[in-house]
Amino acid sequence: MAMSKQPDGALAQMRRVHEERILSLLRKQGPLSRRELGDQSGLSRTTLHDIISGLAADGTVVAVAPENALRGRGRPAELVSLHPAAGQAIGIDFAQRHVHVAIVNVAHEIIGSADEAHAADLPWPQRAEIAQRLIARLTEGTVRMGSLTGIGVGVVGPGTGREETLRRLNAVRLLLHEHYGVPVLVDNNTRLAALGESVWGSAVGHDDVVYLRLSHGVGGGLILGGTLHRGAHGISGEFGHITVDPEGRECRCGGRGCLETVASVHALITAYHEASGRPGEFAEFLAAVEDGEKRARDLLSRVGAQTGQVLAGVCNAVGPELVVIGGELAQLGDALLHHIEAALRAHGMPAAFEDLRVRPAALGDAGAALGAIALVLHESPLLARYPTEPGTRERDDS
Amino acid sequence: MAMSKQPDGALAQMRRVHEERILSLLRKQGPLSRRELGDQSGLSRTTLHDIISGLAADGTVVAVAPENALRGRGRPAELVSLHPAAGQAIGIDFAQRHVHVAIVNVAHEIIGSADEAHAADLPWPQRAEIAQRLIARLTEGTVRMGSLTGIGVGVVGPGTGREETLRRLNAVRLLLHEHYGVPVLVDNNTRLAALGESVWGSAVGHDDVVYLRLSHGVGGGLILGGTLHRGAHGISGEFGHITVDPEGRECRCGGRGCLETVASVHALITAYHEASGRPGEFAEFLAAVEDGEKRARDLLSRVGAQTGQVLAGVCNAVGPELVVIGGELAQLGDALLHHIEAALRAHGMPAAFEDLRVRPAALGDAGAALGAIALVLHESPLLARYPTEPGTRERDDS
Repeated sequence: MAMSKQPDGALAQMRRVHEERILSLLRKQGPLSRRELGDQSGLSRTTLHDIISGLAADGTVVAVAPENALRGRGRPAELVSLHPAAGQAIGIDFAQRHVHVAIVNVAHEIIGSADEAHAADLPWPQRAEIAQRLIARLTEGTVRMGSLTGIGVGVVGPGTGREETLRRLNAVRLLLHEHYGVPVLVDNNTRLAALGESVWGSAVGHDDVVYLRLSHGVGGGLILGGTLHRGAHGISGEFGHITVDPEGRECRCGGRGCLETVASVHALITAYHEASGRPGEFAEFLAAVEDGEKRARDLLSRVGAQTGQVLAGVCNAVGPELVVIGGELAQLGDALLHHIEAALRAHGMPAAFEDLRVRPAALGDAGAALGAIALVLHESPLLARYPTEPGTRERDDS
Repeated sequence: MAMSKQPDGALAQMRRVHEERILSLLRKQGPLSRRELGDQSGLSRTTLHDIISGLAADGTVVAVAPENALRGRGRPAELVSLHPAAGQAIGIDFAQRHVHVAIVNVAHEIIGSADEAHAADLPWPQRAEIAQRLIARLTEGTVRMGSLTGIGVGVVGPGTGREETLRRLNAVRLLLHEHYGVPVLVDNNTRLAALGESVWGSAVGHDDVVYLRLSHGVGGGLILGGTLHRGAHGISGEFGHITVDPEGRECRCGGRGCLETVASVHALITAYHEASGRPGEFAEFLAAVEDGEKRARDLLSRVGAQTGQVLAGVCNAVGPELVVIGGELAQLGDALLHHIEAALRAHGMPAAFEDLRVRPAALGDAGAALGAIALVLHESPLLARYPTEPGTRERDDS
C-alpha cells in the first residue's frame, strides 16, 4: 500500500486537504467565525485549531473583529479572514456600451470600482485597453501579478449564436491572459450580476434565487443551492425570451411576444411614446411615473403584471426563496415592483409563494463586475489544480 | 497537533475517506470500470488499486463482466460493483389510489416491483400494511434487516398545504421506521419519478433534465447538475400550475388557466367529451386518436401546443439537455409528443434548443418507487453519519 510506506506524505496530504477546505470556505464566504468554520468544514475542534494556527503563523489568515468584516453577522465572536494582502481578484464587465471594473482582495473587501462608456461597435482590443486602464487607475499601478488570484469577465451573450459567443469569449480571454498572466474566467454578464447579488448584494444569505434584469435587454440568472446554475449548454436564465403574449410583437430572438418585447427599456418607452405622444426617453418616463401620470402608471401596471406572470412560471418550476429585480427598470422601485409581486402571487402556487419575497437589486451597474469576482473566488480551488500550464489554466466556459 | 500524535488514526481515517468515495460512486452510479472510478474519484492508480483490493478482500465489492451489469456501457473492461448481497433498498410510492413497491440490491439490480390498487380514502396505516405485504411477497420473506440500506418513500404533495403534507410524511415515516428499523427518506412522488428516470429510465447519463408528468394531476421535477432539485421550500417542478391561458378555467390550486386545467387526463377527456359527445373515458380517447379521428387529433394538437409553450418557458429558464414526458398521456406517444416538441421549439430560444430532445418516460408506474430507491442510494452516505439514534436517522424533508 502506497500510503503506509509514506506516513509523512499521507499526513502532509491530509493536512493540505484540511487547509484547502478552510481556505475555500473563506474565499467563498468571506470572514467566518471559528464555530462557522467548524460547522461547515466538519473538522474537529482540535484539528480546526491546529489548521487555523498554522495558517495564521504563515500569515495566510488573520483574526478580525466582526465590525471590520464586510459582511459582519452581528456576532460578538472574532472572525477568521484571509489576509487582505494575500491576493486580489479583478472583475470586468464588458457590457454593450460600457466597461465596468471592480477589484476586491481575498478578504472580500472591495478595493474599488470604475467604469467607462464607449461606442457600441468598439473593437475588442480597444475594450480590453479600457479595462487595463481602469484597473491601473484603481490599483494606482500597484497590481502585483503575484498577488492576483484571477480575473473574472462578463460578456454579453449568448448573442446571435454560439460561434459568435465563443469567438468573443476567446478573444477577450487571450488578451487579458497575455497581459496579466493569470487565469481568466468568462461567463454571461447577466448571470454574473445574479451571482454578484447573491455574494455582495440583496440576495446575500439566500441559496435559491431568481434574478431578473430589466434593462435594454431582458435576461436573468438562477442561483440554485448556493451555486450559479448554468444549464446544459451554458444557456439558462433566459427569462426575457419566455412567451408572455403569443399574439404579441416579434422578438429579436425569432420568437413572438417574449417578455423582452414588453418589459425592456425600449419596449416601455416606445409604448409610452405611442400612448402619450411624449418623447420616448427613459428619464421622461421616470418623471411621468413620479408625477403620478395615469398613462405612465397604467403602462407600468400592465408591464408589471406580464413580468410577474413570467416570473410565477419560473418560480413554480424552481421554487426560489427570493426574487431580485435588477436593471434600469428596477429604478422605478415599488411603482413597478408591487405590480410584479401581485401578479407573481396571483399566478403562482400559494404554498410555494407564502415566504417568497421580491427585492430590487443592490449593486447597480457594478453588479456583473462584482459577480465576475465572485466567479474567481468561487472557482479558484479548481484553478489551483492547473497552476503550471498557462494554456490549461483557462476554463472552457462554452 | 492531534494528527501527528496519532499517525495510524490519521491514516485509517484517510483510508476510510477514500473507501467512502469509491463506495459512494458505486452506490450512485452502479458498476463502474476502474478507469471511471479513477477519473471520478481523483485517486491515484496506486491508491485506487489498494482501496479496491481491500474492499474486494472483505467482500464489499466484486468484479463483474460488463454484460452482467444492468447499465453496461458497452466497454470491454471489467467493472467494479458493490456486492449484490451487501444490501437492499426498498422504494415505495404511495400514489392517490395505488401502492407501488420496488426493490433493488446495492449493485443496482432490480429484484422486483409490484403494486396494488386501493380506494382513494384508505387510511395511512392500511396503506403501509399494503406496502409491507408487497415487500414481503417480493422478497419472499427474506428481507434481512441487516442488509436493508434504507427505505425511500414517495407521497403525493404538496397537496392542500404544508401542514397536511408534513402530517402525512411523518405518519408514513414513523410506521415504516418502526416496522423495519432503518432510515426512511420521504419526497414528493412526481419529483422521485424524475429522479427515477435519470437513474434507471430514459434520462440515464443526462445531468440537466426537465421531467413533466401528464396524469390525473400535472407536475414534474428537475434534475440539475445530476441532482434532484428541491427548491427553497421543498416545492419545485410545479409545471402543472404554470399559467398557460390567463382567461382559462379555474384550477384546484386557486389559479386560473394552469397547464393542469388543459393537459391532465381529466381535462383532456372532458374536452373530448364536450367536443364529440362520446364517453369521457381515457381508453375511448386513446382509441379515437389511434383511429385518426380528427376531433381527437385536433384536441391533442392544441394540448400539445399549450404544453410545449409552458415547457419552453421552463427550458429557457433552466437550460436542460433533455425533456422527459411521463404519466398516462405519454401513452399517446408521438401523436402528442411531436406537438409538444414543435411548440417547444417555436417558443424557446433557438440557441438553447438546438440539441434539446423530448423523450417519453421509460419506467411507467414503477418510476416513483424506483426514484425513491435512487433517493436512498444517493443519500445513504448522509445517513451513515447518524447510525445509532433511530430518531435522528430520519431526514427532515420539509
